[in-house]
Amino acid sequence: MADRGAATKILLPESEMPTRWYNILADMPSPPDPPLHPGTKQPPAPEDLAPLFPMDLIEQEVSGQRYFDIPEPVLDIYRMWRPTPLHRAHRLEAALGTPAHIYYKYEGTSPAGSHKPNTSVAQAYYNRKAGITRLTTETGAGQWGSALAFAARQFDLEIRVYMVKVSYEQKPYRRLMIETWGGEVVPSPSRLTASGRRILEDDPDSPGSLGIAISEAVEEAAGRKDTNYSLGSVLNHVLLHQTVIGQEAQKQFALAGDYPDVVIACCGGGSNFGGLTFPFLYDRFTGNAPKAARVVAVEPAACPTLTRGVYAYDFGDTAGFTPLMKMYTLGHGFMPPGIHAGGLRYHGDSPIVSKLVKDGHVEAQAYSQVGVFEAAVQFARTEGIIPAPESAHAVKSAVEEALAAKAEGAPRTILFGLSGHGHFDLAAYEQYLRGRLQDYEYPAEMVEKALADLPVVPGA
Amino acid sequence: MADRGAATKILLPESEMPTRWYNILADMPSPPDPPLHPGTKQPPAPEDLAPLFPMDLIEQEVSGQRYFDIPEPVLDIYRMWRPTPLHRAHRLEAALGTPAHIYYKYEGTSPAGSHKPNTSVAQAYYNRKAGITRLTTETGAGQWGSALAFAARQFDLEIRVYMVKVSYEQKPYRRLMIETWGGEVVPSPSRLTASGRRILEDDPDSPGSLGIAISEAVEEAAGRKDTNYSLGSVLNHVLLHQTVIGQEAQKQFALAGDYPDVVIACCGGGSNFGGLTFPFLYDRFTGNAPKAARVVAVEPAACPTLTRGVYAYDFGDTAGFTPLMKMYTLGHGFMPPGIHAGGLRYHGDSPIVSKLVKDGHVEAQAYSQVGVFEAAVQFARTEGIIPAPESAHAVKSAVEEALAAKAEGAPRTILFGLSGHGHFDLAAYEQYLRGRLQDYEYPAEMVEKALADLPVVPGA
Repeated sequence: MADRGAATKILLPESEMPTRWYNILADMPSPPDPPLHPGTKQPPAPEDLAPLFPMDLIEQEVSGQRYFDIPEPVLDIYRMWRPTPLHRAHRLEAALGTPAHIYYKYEGTSPAGSHKPNTSVAQAYYNRKAGITRLTTETGAGQWGSALAFAARQFDLEIRVYMVKVSYEQKPYRRLMIETWGGEVVPSPSRLTASGRRILEDDPDSPGSLGIAISEAVEEAAGRKDTNYSLGSVLNHVLLHQTVIGQEAQKQFALAGDYPDVVIACCGGGSNFGGLTFPFLYDRFTGNAPKAARVVAVEPAACPTLTRGVYAYDFGDTAGFTPLMKMYTLGHGFMPPGIHAGGLRYHGDSPIVSKLVKDGHVEAQAYSQVGVFEAAVQFARTEGIIPAPESAHAVKSAVEEALAAKAEGAPRTILFGLSGHGHFDLAAYEQYLRGRLQDYEYPAEMVEKALADLPVVPGA
Repeated sequence: MADRGAATKILLPESEMPTRWYNILADMPSPPDPPLHPGTKQPPAPEDLAPLFPMDLIEQEVSGQRYFDIPEPVLDIYRMWRPTPLHRAHRLEAALGTPAHIYYKYEGTSPAGSHKPNTSVAQAYYNRKAGITRLTTETGAGQWGSALAFAARQFDLEIRVYMVKVSYEQKPYRRLMIETWGGEVVPSPSRLTASGRRILEDDPDSPGSLGIAISEAVEEAAGRKDTNYSLGSVLNHVLLHQTVIGQEAQKQFALAGDYPDVVIACCGGGSNFGGLTFPFLYDRFTGNAPKAARVVAVEPAACPTLTRGVYAYDFGDTAGFTPLMKMYTLGHGFMPPGIHAGGLRYHGDSPIVSKLVKDGHVEAQAYSQVGVFEAAVQFARTEGIIPAPESAHAVKSAVEEALAAKAEGAPRTILFGLSGHGHFDLAAYEQYLRGRLQDYEYPAEMVEKALADLPVVPGA
C-alpha cells in the first residue's frame, strides 16, 4: 500500500487563481527571430494578420510586455474547472521505489479534457469583443476543435470545424463533443472552399490532412468579415494564455513547501509545454526561486523536431501559406508516422520554444511510443488516471528521472504536466496491451527529403 | 454572458474529507423489512452470506450503528480525487432565467468517471483485509466493472469481470479501461461456469444479460475460497459507502452559506441516490438543519420502478438466485427497453430507498429519455460538462424545479447529483442530436406479466 504521509492533491481556492498571463518574451535572454511574410520575406505588419485575428490577439502575439491581465469574463469561465489540482504521485513513487518526489499538474479536468480551453476561451472572448460572430478552425482527432467549440458556445459564437476526413469517419467521439456543444463539423476536404474543391477534383476520395484543413479554415475566415480563424498552438499568444498552468503550479509548490528540480512537459506545437514551464523559466531568468529548475521538452522519436530537426525559417503549415517562422523543423513537407500521440505529430514547433532549446535553456528528449505506453499503463495502475498519449510522453520522462534519482540514491523533486486524459484514446491502449503497438525508427530519409525543400531566406 | 457573482465551485481541502460513513438505518423512522432466504423465507444468517462477502461488509449490511469509521487506506485512495467539487450552475441559471440557485455535486472526477469508486475501493479494501486475493463481478456497459478494476488494482487483488457479451462486443471503451487497470474481462455467457455453459448449450449465440453475468460471477466466487463477489449498488453497505458524497455537500453548503430546499438524484439501484441524499435525510429526521429539504429520486419512464412498481418481496436478480428483498419492483422478469441510461435499467431498487419512498420521505419522478437528453444538452452547452445519461435524469428534474421557481417568481435552492460524465455515451448524444432518439411508453403489459411472477412470501 502507498505512502500515506503528505497530501495527495494540492488544491488552490478560486480566489488564488492567477489573474494575469505571463509573457516570456519580456525575459528571454535572447528573443526569437521575427516571423517573415512568405512573399516579401519581411516581418508582417499587424494589418497583414487582421483578416484572421482580432487586434487584441495580434498585440499579444508581438508584445514584449511581461504580463497581460486576464479579462474577467475569461476568468469567470476558467473558474468552471480552474485552478486545476497538483497531485503528488505517492503511488507511482512507491511502485518505482524512488526517493524522488513526483508531482503532476493535471489539466484533464477541463470540460474538453485537456489544457486547450485555457486559450480557446481567451481567443473566443477577444473575437467576440471585436464584433466577430463566427470562428473557423481545423482539427485532427478533435482535441482542439472540441476545446474551441466549448469556448465558442460560452460567448455565443458560431463555429465551423474542418475536421480531417479520415478522423471524422474513424474517430467520431470528439466530433460528437463538438456537436453536443453546438459546433458544426465539416469533413475536410469539403466543397465549401476553393482549396477543398481543388483537392476533391484531383482525388474525390482524399482522406484529408491537417494541412488541407488549415487551408480551408483560413480561406473561409479570410473571405468573411464576420468570421475569424483560431489556432490551438505554436503562436506566441496561444502559449501566453496557457501560462495559468505554471503559475498555479508555483503557488501549489509554495503551499507544499517544495520546489521542482526538474519540470517536464510534452511538446508538439508548444502550448502545453510553454504553459507549464514558462513561469518556472521566469524564476530561473530572474533568480526568483530557491533553485533553478531544469526544464525538459519531451517529443516522440517518430517526430523528433527538437532533437533531430534543424533550426531554420520554415512554413507553419504543410501547404506553405503561413508566415515563415524561425524554429526547429523537420521540413514542412514531412509527414510523421501514424503514432497515437496525434497532438505531437507536427513538423515544426513554437518559435519561442525553439529559441529556448537552441540557446540551451530547455533540454529536449525523444521517446518511442511502446516505452511511452508502458509508462502510461504503469501510471494508470498506480495513480488511476489514464493519460492521453501526448501526456504519456511526459510520464515516461518523469519515470526516467525518478529512476535516475533512485540509481543515485539522492532525492529529486520532479514536476510534470499531465495535459489531458486518454478517454478517447483507449484503442491505442488496446494495441499496447495486445502487443500490437509499433515503434518507428527515426525517419531519416523522409526528414532529409523534407529539409531539402526549406524556403530560402536571404541572410537568415 | 453569465452571472459573475458568487463562486463557481465550492472546494473542500483534503483535511475536510469525511472520515466516516453515515448509516441511515440508525435514523429511519421505520426500518425496511429484512431480506429473506429464497428457500426458507427466513432472514439469512451472516454465515449464509460468508461465501460471497467478507464479514466486515456483512456487518455493515445489517448494522444499525449510525457511523462507520472509514479505514485510513480507503481514505488514502479517496484522496486521489476527493473531496469532489460542488458547482454553482451560474450559466444554467442564466439560460433558464430562473431566480433559483442551482448547485450540482460532480462525481465525474474520479478515475473511473463516476461515483462508483466510493464503494469499490471500500469493498476491495475489506476483501483484501479478509485475506481474499480475487474478486468477481458482473458489468453491463462497464461502469461498475471499471470502478472495481481500478479499486482491485490499488489493493493488488486480481479481478475477473463478466461483461454482458453484447456490450463486450459493441462498447469496447470501458472494457479497455478495465484491461488498462489490469483486470480480466470475460464475455458472458462464458464456458468458465456451469451457468454460462448451460446458456450456451441452449443458445451458442446468446447476447448475454446482466442476470446471466451475475449468475456466473456469483457461481465462481461461491466455489473458490480465495475469491469473493462484489456488487455495485442496491445493498445497504454499498449505499453506506456512498454517503461521503452527501456529507461533503453539506460541508460545502455551509461554506457557501446556503442550504438546499430540494435534493435531487437519479436512482437505479440506489447507490448514487443514497450517497447524496441520506446525509440530508439525516438532517431532516433529526432536525439538524435550518430547513428540511425535499428529496427527489428520478428514474426513467421506461423503467419506472419507484413510480409504477409494486412494493413487495422480489428477487434482486433476473434468474432468481438472490435473497428476496422487500422493495419497489417491476418484477424480476421485467426486461426494460433499451434506453441509454443503462445504470437505471433495473427492475428493483434498494430496500432502504424503497422504504423511504413508501413512507413518503422521498418523492419519486420519472422522465422520458428525449426530454432528459434535451436537458443534458442544455446543461452541456451552459456548464460545459457532458453528463452521463443516468445523471441527465437529475439534470432534467433540476431544470423543472428551476422553471417552477421561475413561474412562482420565488427563490429556491436546488442541489442535484451529477454522478458521472458522458464521455463513453456520446453515441447516445448523436442519436438525440440527429432526432433519432426514441421515447418508450410505459410498458404496462410487460410489467403486468412480470409482476404475475412475484415470489409468494406468506404473511408479507
